[in-house]
Amino acid sequence: MKALEDKIRREGVVLPGNILKVGSFLNHQLDVDFLMEMGREIARKFEGDGVTKILTIETSGIAVAMAAAAAMHVPVVFGKKHKTGNLSGQMYSTVVHSYTHGTDYTVVMSREYLGSADVVLLVDDFLANGAALEGLMDIAAQAGARVVGAACAIEKGFQHGGDRLRERGVKVESLAIVESMSDDSLTFR
Amino acid sequence: MKALEDKIRREGVVLPGNILKVGSFLNHQLDVDFLMEMGREIARKFEGDGVTKILTIETSGIAVAMAAAAAMHVPVVFGKKHKTGNLSGQMYSTVVHSYTHGTDYTVVMSREYLGSADVVLLVDDFLANGAALEGLMDIAAQAGARVVGAACAIEKGFQHGGDRLRERGVKVESLAIVESMSDDSLTFR
Repeated sequence: MKALEDKIRREGVVLPGNILKVGSFLNHQLDVDFLMEMGREIARKFEGDGVTKILTIETSGIAVAMAAAAAMHVPVVFGKKHKTGNLSGQMYSTVVHSYTHGTDYTVVMSREYLGSADVVLLVDDFLANGAALEGLMDIAAQAGARVVGAACAIEKGFQHGGDRLRERGVKVESLAIVESMSDDSLTFR
Repeated sequence: MKALEDKIRREGVVLPGNILKVGSFLNHQLDVDFLMEMGREIARKFEGDGVTKILTIETSGIAVAMAAAAAMHVPVVFGKKHKTGNLSGQMYSTVVHSYTHGTDYTVVMSREYLGSADVVLLVDDFLANGAALEGLMDIAAQAGARVVGAACAIEKGFQHGGDRLRERGVKVESLAIVESMSDDSLTFR
């Protein structure tokens, strides 16, 4: 999505540790008109796939997921980050490894809101190592739901999580794929 | 908003400690088509007020804020919950008391995204004691921004936070005001 690439070039800030800061429109301030445009683009890529529900993880996935859901007229269910191991049986849960923070966290989702009749699209803001998407795929598998694919705003192509998912046959659509980045240059795939 | 009152009656669950669980459409699963309708209703209530930016607090405020912002064509900035006292000078910050959890938490917002030229609408999912809205008003005051009012999905009228704000002259618009609730009954103002 050319408009997103342009926006990343204009507003993105590259920080040490392969961090791409896009707080001006995606992670802290939300450029909602632009997000809704991104949502319509995601809807086009998964048109006809019969999606009944969008899954994401709090917090930063919610805005993109909601924009896509508005265009596709389906609900969102967001996984909640859970600090303790104390879970009720009413929850699906999975452990996600954060490469950024070097820690594991548990994501939970109520069984009430996802079942075997659901056809699921996974949505997130960033795709780097793919750990968050793998966690959502695990939750969908626990529910017996069918996953039609994953859509991300920004994929860090050089971290190869998206490529690994594509090799396994998952339909992964990223609106912008950063192939390399440094203080003074960004290249897109 | 009659449709919201009906939905709360149909899907809401009253739990001990004055908790109204609306996870089926507002806090865990998001009924996005319905949220967008709520957003349009909020936009109507603040039409002509010159709003340039919507402020909310992560996580549960984001969906309602985004729906209102989509209808008003303005950006959202969400305050982030911050665990430590270690803050950089690039942040506005305020302490919010959570009556539900009996603890204080710090909310931070980057100075980059809010300034004295902004005309601000505060949006949240719930309004109970009003502590979260007071925190956002404090942040807006630090930025020198003008606050035109606050919009909430569900106000717990019996906790009087909304009334206290109205008495101070703040325009508070809640889409549904629960006057009393128990296991087997809900009344709206």
